[in-house]
Amino acid sequence: MTKAESAELQVKSPEPVRISVLGSTGSIGTQVLDVVRRLGPDVVRVVGLGAHSNAELLIEQAREFEPELVCIGDERALDRVKSALAGTYRPRPLFGKRGRRRIRVCAGAAGLDELAALPEADKIVVSVAGTPGLSPTLAAIEAGKDVALASKEVLVAAGHLVMEAVRRKGVLLLPIDSEHSAIFQCVNGEDRGAIEKIYLTASGGAFRDLPIDALASVTPKQALAHPTWKMGRKVTVDSATLMNKGLEIIEAKWLFDVDADRIEVVIHPTSIVHSMVRFADGSTIAQLGLPDMRLPIQYALVYPRRIDSGLPRLDILKAGALEFRPVDWDRFECLKLAADAARVGGTLAVVMNAADEVAVELFLAGKINFMDISRVVRKTMESHDSKPSPSLDEIYIVDAEARAAARAIAGQLGAFPG
Amino acid sequence: MTKAESAELQVKSPEPVRISVLGSTGSIGTQVLDVVRRLGPDVVRVVGLGAHSNAELLIEQAREFEPELVCIGDERALDRVKSALAGTYRPRPLFGKRGRRRIRVCAGAAGLDELAALPEADKIVVSVAGTPGLSPTLAAIEAGKDVALASKEVLVAAGHLVMEAVRRKGVLLLPIDSEHSAIFQCVNGEDRGAIEKIYLTASGGAFRDLPIDALASVTPKQALAHPTWKMGRKVTVDSATLMNKGLEIIEAKWLFDVDADRIEVVIHPTSIVHSMVRFADGSTIAQLGLPDMRLPIQYALVYPRRIDSGLPRLDILKAGALEFRPVDWDRFECLKLAADAARVGGTLAVVMNAADEVAVELFLAGKINFMDISRVVRKTMESHDSKPSPSLDEIYIVDAEARAAARAIAGQLGAFPG
Repeated sequence: MTKAESAELQVKSPEPVRISVLGSTGSIGTQVLDVVRRLGPDVVRVVGLGAHSNAELLIEQAREFEPELVCIGDERALDRVKSALAGTYRPRPLFGKRGRRRIRVCAGAAGLDELAALPEADKIVVSVAGTPGLSPTLAAIEAGKDVALASKEVLVAAGHLVMEAVRRKGVLLLPIDSEHSAIFQCVNGEDRGAIEKIYLTASGGAFRDLPIDALASVTPKQALAHPTWKMGRKVTVDSATLMNKGLEIIEAKWLFDVDADRIEVVIHPTSIVHSMVRFADGSTIAQLGLPDMRLPIQYALVYPRRIDSGLPRLDILKAGALEFRPVDWDRFECLKLAADAARVGGTLAVVMNAADEVAVELFLAGKINFMDISRVVRKTMESHDSKPSPSLDEIYIVDAEARAAARAIAGQLGAFPG
Repeated sequence: MTKAESAELQVKSPEPVRISVLGSTGSIGTQVLDVVRRLGPDVVRVVGLGAHSNAELLIEQAREFEPELVCIGDERALDRVKSALAGTYRPRPLFGKRGRRRIRVCAGAAGLDELAALPEADKIVVSVAGTPGLSPTLAAIEAGKDVALASKEVLVAAGHLVMEAVRRKGVLLLPIDSEHSAIFQCVNGEDRGAIEKIYLTASGGAFRDLPIDALASVTPKQALAHPTWKMGRKVTVDSATLMNKGLEIIEAKWLFDVDADRIEVVIHPTSIVHSMVRFADGSTIAQLGLPDMRLPIQYALVYPRRIDSGLPRLDILKAGALEFRPVDWDRFECLKLAADAARVGGTLAVVMNAADEVAVELFLAGKINFMDISRVVRKTMESHDSKPSPSLDEIYIVDAEARAAARAIAGQLGAFPG
């Protein structure tokens, strides 16, 4: 049975989807669990939970959802999680086994990979921040699991490895990003070879209307005030520089197998149209919704089903006029750099992503100014000779080297204010 | 092999689609043939052509496309068409038969039914104006043909009969209307049971911004100046009264099997978003394009394929802001009447459609004023007791009676200016 047939069958006689959530205590992870609560155990069941370091919230989640396996990334917290969950049992026999069982607890990167390949899970939600999502994503695919992917860095750093594995194993890779979920919905039932153009919409971030001269002096606090979406700190700053949109170009390139020059970023201030696809016949399909991550999360969890879980509805008569403007490339150097990386491919995207993580961290710590973010990324990229189709080990090495290079470049910039 | 499998197969190893065009000399019919020229004979071939009375254009089209069968509705023109085509042959042997053959010519309503069931055709395009499209549509479906339907009156008058036949014969009914094509594209790959709401967009017609007081004195010439679409005279007046949108509610109800109260008409002045569907999970899918009938025509001809035939492209950055406003129900009584007919169903929709045809004809002839159109329709509807699920014969009788009643009512109105 192919995945498509299996998906069709699921519409007819739905069994609960059993998910393992990697990064369950983060911004996306907690919203995933909110959607699971809304859908109820007849639709989705949590069989695995993993978090980096927030042991207390992880324990609370484990008590609520009673999964098979819990993983805490920070190994120092393993004993705390184990003892806290010693009295919690999985209440109902699942999969034909009898009696109640203890919740298993593991830790560290190896534990995360175990969670990703959990035999009891159908689908793995990867909402781990940054490149640490890469190894469990590949582990999940190799174990034949469908993957709901919220970590864009995974495809940015290793799109070629991930998509090769997805094709080889015949699993589904379901994007959780609102834009990529939109594109995924727009191409539903269509021949992907007929995609002529993808319009990737961008709110324009916190500073879309600020004079360019004023950008150098914006504070982290200002950068963290996104006009339409509530998200984590790193992605909110990336939204202000439009690096986030740049990462999404690379993500879309891999997910939908289209050249980067067919992906056009357009500013759409109200974030109602989450993206659009124009097909070979000239017809354009768009996906619209309120700016609420729970909708793309739900779609990734129960695809191809459409279920009413009581999420707030878009009323098109109250949405206001839908506007689309060209991107001001001079204002958003990070977007230009990402578009270059999308075209060149290979390790250049790894370097860009690593340098951006370092630069955003330094900006949030008050060490460099807002305009320095793209400077650090550009100079780090310029210092690198891109290599096509790197292996996983090469990616990790390039990533570490790029972080070191970015820190050195940021220091040399003489831009440290303090 | 199911239709869906057959459609999928067509994507992989496409054979030319063989079409018979009923109403080939009208506004839609000539655009169908333009699309056929653009796609070329490797994609679509014309095997049948039929026209009501424009014998000269029909002859010209037959000489260009060399179909198997040509039908002229007006029997008085049969000899003219026959002699004109006596020297034209089908040039290439098709379907394994040898040598060249004469083009066959037939006439009248029986001829139209023959054209609709043409053995050489895979798909029948019904772009006959008004209720005369009903009999050939049913004939085509009974002969197991897919139908590309441009005549909305067919579903308005006999949606229950048409959809029952479509289900029983397992054929595809492909809408050519831009709005219904949009909805059809939005639900592609989706479970139709998950449709929560259909947003049917309306430009608002020629008089959307005119003071209501001024409506009584608008001229036929003003009513025929549509802001965005170029169409036939009847449908352009129906666009000004929004009766056209009312007919589309009824059409959508049948095509997509949704209750009328799930279909909401919204004014969208620029006609870029051709319609939208909101699904059970709250996600909304929209189809966008330039106001050009050739796109929905092509989609209906080659569905599910997306082929570049060089039609002009929508550039979302040049489309202007997309606005959606509620309908002013006081201004558009015809829409209200149609929404009632959609809810009540049965013969009431037949009566409404017949009365509207009469009223628009009288308006265009300068016999009644613009506001009288809805008055005539309303009074004709009020004089009728609706009967559910009428047979084809009952529909024809009710239609004829309603036309007579509408004429009488228009006379009694005392509204004749001359």
